[in-house]
Amino acid sequence: MAPRKNGRLLFNEVPQGSSYPVPGKTTVYDDSEKIDLDNVPLNGGFLLKTLVLSIDPYIRGRMRDISRTNHTYSSPTSQEHREVIAHGVGVVVRSEDATVKAGDHIYGFLDFVEYSVKPNMQGLKVLKNEENLPWSVYVGVAGMPGQTAYTAWKEYADAKKGETVFVTTGGGKQTMFVVQLAKVDGLKVIACAGSDEKVKFMKEIGADVAFNYKTTPVAEVLKKEGPIDVYWDNVGGETLEAAINAASTGARLIECGMSSDYNNSVPYHVKNLFQIIPKSLKVYGFSVTALLEKYVTAFYEEVPKKLANGEIKYTEDVTQGLEGAGEAILAVLKGTNTGKKVILVAQE
Amino acid sequence: MAPRKNGRLLFNEVPQGSSYPVPGKTTVYDDSEKIDLDNVPLNGGFLLKTLVLSIDPYIRGRMRDISRTNHTYSSPTSQEHREVIAHGVGVVVRSEDATVKAGDHIYGFLDFVEYSVKPNMQGLKVLKNEENLPWSVYVGVAGMPGQTAYTAWKEYADAKKGETVFVTTGGGKQTMFVVQLAKVDGLKVIACAGSDEKVKFMKEIGADVAFNYKTTPVAEVLKKEGPIDVYWDNVGGETLEAAINAASTGARLIECGMSSDYNNSVPYHVKNLFQIIPKSLKVYGFSVTALLEKYVTAFYEEVPKKLANGEIKYTEDVTQGLEGAGEAILAVLKGTNTGKKVILVAQE
Repeated sequence: MAPRKNGRLLFNEVPQGSSYPVPGKTTVYDDSEKIDLDNVPLNGGFLLKTLVLSIDPYIRGRMRDISRTNHTYSSPTSQEHREVIAHGVGVVVRSEDATVKAGDHIYGFLDFVEYSVKPNMQGLKVLKNEENLPWSVYVGVAGMPGQTAYTAWKEYADAKKGETVFVTTGGGKQTMFVVQLAKVDGLKVIACAGSDEKVKFMKEIGADVAFNYKTTPVAEVLKKEGPIDVYWDNVGGETLEAAINAASTGARLIECGMSSDYNNSVPYHVKNLFQIIPKSLKVYGFSVTALLEKYVTAFYEEVPKKLANGEIKYTEDVTQGLEGAGEAILAVLKGTNTGKKVILVAQE
Repeated sequence: MAPRKNGRLLFNEVPQGSSYPVPGKTTVYDDSEKIDLDNVPLNGGFLLKTLVLSIDPYIRGRMRDISRTNHTYSSPTSQEHREVIAHGVGVVVRSEDATVKAGDHIYGFLDFVEYSVKPNMQGLKVLKNEENLPWSVYVGVAGMPGQTAYTAWKEYADAKKGETVFVTTGGGKQTMFVVQLAKVDGLKVIACAGSDEKVKFMKEIGADVAFNYKTTPVAEVLKKEGPIDVYWDNVGGETLEAAINAASTGARLIECGMSSDYNNSVPYHVKNLFQIIPKSLKVYGFSVTALLEKYVTAFYEEVPKKLANGEIKYTEDVTQGLEGAGEAILAVLKGTNTGKKVILVAQE
């Protein structure tokens, strides 16, 4: 077969300050390179065809100068003029690596490129998918976002039947899974999201109270529906302050994100930290990678099955083709996506 | 015996805003009442002679309007025109309660009064004191401050040999015990205090680095001597911010107090809360009362013995007589005490 074009999404330049990445400027789709699938040298590795890529907010965190390593989720490996990197699923085309064979499906950090040669399986995992789920699910509820929800909930929620949890900010990320985990544990669920469509979905999957935080003040809802025993935080700032005010004695605060601070050079002044003491609050930052070691077997045994039989529900917002990946990143950062954002790069 | 005067310290009025209590105004020593030790009716309870009272910052927290119950350490039981209340030790003079007899020593919340009739032993504990320690020790390292240090350290420090802890603010409170617990566990100890005398004591009991926070910036010391794996917080505010900046991945922050906020109507703006997430920090508020249930037996078995054989060291700053209790409270709140502040109300 003659060489074919090998499209990719390049990280072209660091966005100014805390501004949004601009498609065509920050990120550039490029199909100038070609690849010969039959003859590209593997050097003991394997050739991978990218099927699905996940768009998550952490992609923005990596778009920074290589020297800035501190206080951020992820290493700045998105070097300029290299492909953007995120979680994805691919299928092996050819292999010289004894641990994988053609046809195997692989999950892990992948480049935003149609075809890539991987030197080995380091950091990657073969997916069995006995339930024949769409591969996109393995970057969503059955991937990193789902693992984030599952592992941190099991480790830190200390959920007791009859308690109340407040989940921010629902609809498109791991939070839709948190709502369902909380309902299984018998909690009253208060959930907020940034669009009426997401609010509707939150209610469909079991949230007892769901509201649009853009039109209804969080503090007002918590005053009426609280106190809260568990807080799943993706927002930080003023919402965190409202949650602390509404927290019961001994409440657990699971810190998954503080998105309200991402685009502000000076973060919101949380003025009630003192309440951590008289309320005996527990505040947990965590790394899904570190927690996964403990829960990975249980996760892959439980979650795909429950997705297959409909016990766990999810929504996706699919972009077809790598050409639209720059816009997809922007949509996730602006919160205009309508479900877990995935790029369908190619069919099998 | 004829009736004798029964001196007491009255909580006279709520201090204005967040100001210091004023001896003679907020608190008033009163010896107008008399008591007949031989004939005062016990009604099934017992007559207690107060020996020692503890002066701790929480006394200020209770000096508030009875309606203000939220977000403070303790209930506002310091009703105006009643005796101030705090931890103390007393000896039983007469008893109609079968569970205690004359000569027994009792620990718990006591009124600031020379003699009192207690209806029963609720919330009180008989002290054995097989080591013949001074009774004052049982309101210090072997009392609530020591229990605070001991229980929270055991429960939350997750201390590992070779790690580093930063302890604020040392010298007069439970922190002198925290320094020693940390050294036993093999940690490098950085400690700060508000006077050179306290700094000297911190070094004597084993702190590897001790400094006066009034003359040396905390952030500077932590930059040089950190990162820190455990933070014992009595200060909050800017010091908490410095500790978060210096925290290692997975560090534990034990929140015992945020004294820097007590006398400010607007608390310091802690600007780096976001680091809780990438650093996987754990922040623990706690109640010593709740933790004690788990550790009380171990505590009384271990601590008095170690005090007796000198393994645990402590300092006291003693005020003789209830007449000086108002000034003693002010000294503790201003941090001018030179060790654990106790009132020796009477000899046996």
